Amino acid sequence: MARRKAKPALQEFALIRDLQRRFARHASGLVQGIGDDAAVIATFAPAWWHLTTDLLAEGIHFDLQSATPESVGYRAAMANLSDIAAMGAIPRYLLVALAIPKTIKRPQVDELYRGLMRACRLYGVALVGGDTSASMAGLFLSITLIGTTTRRRALFRHGAKVGDQIFVSGTLGDSHAGLRLSANSRRSRSSGKRSAPLSRSHRQFLMRRHFYPTARVAEGQWLNSERLASAAIDVSDGLSGDLRHICEESRVGAEVELDKIPISPACRAYAQAVGVSPVQLALTGGEDYELLFTASPKHRGLLKRQARARGYRVTCIGTIRPQQFGMQMTSDGRILPMPATSYEHFH
Amino acid sequence: MARRKAKPALQEFALIRDLQRRFARHASGLVQGIGDDAAVIATFAPAWWHLTTDLLAEGIHFDLQSATPESVGYRAAMANLSDIAAMGAIPRYLLVALAIPKTIKRPQVDELYRGLMRACRLYGVALVGGDTSASMAGLFLSITLIGTTTRRRALFRHGAKVGDQIFVSGTLGDSHAGLRLSANSRRSRSSGKRSAPLSRSHRQFLMRRHFYPTARVAEGQWLNSERLASAAIDVSDGLSGDLRHICEESRVGAEVELDKIPISPACRAYAQAVGVSPVQLALTGGEDYELLFTASPKHRGLLKRQARARGYRVTCIGTIRPQQFGMQMTSDGRILPMPATSYEHFH
Repeated sequence: MARRKAKPALQEFALIRDLQRRFARHASGLVQGIGDDAAVIATFAPAWWHLTTDLLAEGIHFDLQSATPESVGYRAAMANLSDIAAMGAIPRYLLVALAIPKTIKRPQVDELYRGLMRACRLYGVALVGGDTSASMAGLFLSITLIGTTTRRRALFRHGAKVGDQIFVSGTLGDSHAGLRLSANSRRSRSSGKRSAPLSRSHRQFLMRRHFYPTARVAEGQWLNSERLASAAIDVSDGLSGDLRHICEESRVGAEVELDKIPISPACRAYAQAVGVSPVQLALTGGEDYELLFTASPKHRGLLKRQARARGYRVTCIGTIRPQQFGMQMTSDGRILPMPATSYEHFH
Repeated sequence: MARRKAKPALQEFALIRDLQRRFARHASGLVQGIGDDAAVIATFAPAWWHLTTDLLAEGIHFDLQSATPESVGYRAAMANLSDIAAMGAIPRYLLVALAIPKTIKRPQVDELYRGLMRACRLYGVALVGGDTSASMAGLFLSITLIGTTTRRRALFRHGAKVGDQIFVSGTLGDSHAGLRLSANSRRSRSSGKRSAPLSRSHRQFLMRRHFYPTARVAEGQWLNSERLASAAIDVSDGLSGDLRHICEESRVGAEVELDKIPISPACRAYAQAVGVSPVQLALTGGEDYELLFTASPKHRGLLKRQARARGYRVTCIGTIRPQQFGMQMTSDGRILPMPATSYEHFH
């Protein structure tokens, strides 16, 4: 009777009630949180609702050998917050479902929720719904996040025009460098080898950028409310893959100036220490959760001034070209084709 | 690099685009479906939004040995539709995330979506968002369903009053009998034994009630719009477990008259054939997706008349009692304590 195992036991109801009490916050519009057949939210004025959902699998999206449950929860929330940021929306409500294997104990589930809620609190997001069940193998975490904007005001992947400039927030490649560092330090711990020479502060910066990324929620709302961006996406697959999405949805091409890609000193130091190209990390690394957006050149001055005034780092890295141009990178005057995204699975 | 495996390959983008084309329907309010960082839905007049999320795990909630991917999708959608039905809401928008192991091939994923969408089409629900990734072990399916009602008009678990009558739609126990039949027929196929004597039509009825249940969406909207019910829940855990939720949330007790519980001829025949109590199947079986609701005795006449006129089957099975009464069953004048729900997992 496989189904019977799916039924929550008394312990689980206790868990859900407990989490509800601990994490329930007053949230604007919330009529009914966890504890009924559905969460109920009141809508008032006409608006646009933005909904994103993610299903994260142990061994695929995260690894409890190298990551704490708290950082798994934190990162999972940030990945979804980043999707809402890329729409220019205000994140508001979160629903979380967990499938928990026998190997995971209550304190780890608590830790995971703590990480989730720590990320959510930074943006005033309320946990409104949940579901918990058993899993035969591995921890699975499903997140649905809802954000809002006023009507007819959002950032989409389509909308980039030929001649628009391509911008990115923050720096790229850090998260992937942090991931490689964390994998290497595990390997070298088990083999007894020394890891690559890198200062402690650089190492900490990169690991932190991987395990505790920052969704660019304020930046997205700014770009949207000031109508500065013509298209936007968050950098979750790596610059080249995500720029490809903008190009496909906008039916345009793109030229990226490699030397302009913003790379942190820590990422440069890591790349040098291990003998890889920092640009390669930035192009294909992914999970930086920075915003990649396009803007008309007539907004360039305003955009730069406002960004500076607000303390946001945005860097122009290229130009939107006609579709037949394809996607190209230039470096020192040389033209190179954009690398395809480097991952391959799901055969 | 565990993360890299999480990245969708080109085949997956093709899959998502393909599904989008095939299942995209015009839906009221839908601004942006699958294909951006979030789905975007326009809200107009003030309303209440009802959100429910479920995470279903292979080997726990379903079993691809006994169920087709199409029925897994169908049942998963119905389970969520049933939650929305129990709120008295109109189901509208669906988000689906899948984690797919290597053992599952593209035609099975297609079949699963076909089942999902077949259930959704019955209620005019639009698929608006999706996510697909790899899984190290087992198929996982996450569903988020959104329904709407006018403001201040919904059915909750709280709200039952002492003296209210307890009603249930349809018949109970069929789904659990169907599940046991399907498990038995697999066992007897492998052992060569004959299964219990039961007519083909009864067998088909019960299996169908298990693999293709019906969410009582119209019934829920009727109870809500006519203000006939004081509290409601859908029967997913079994009558005794779900009635317990109503009692806890409403701070009341309940008396159920066992002899009034509606049981189908097929379920009675199955119970007799295998020597179990049909009432036991109804009390603890679960997954019938019928509505369990309470109503003031002053509505009884109206409720019965309207149900008859609309062709809905509703049966009065008991009465709400004070909290200190607890939950009791009566049969032939004898009083019995309500059985605890029979499942136990999640230790």
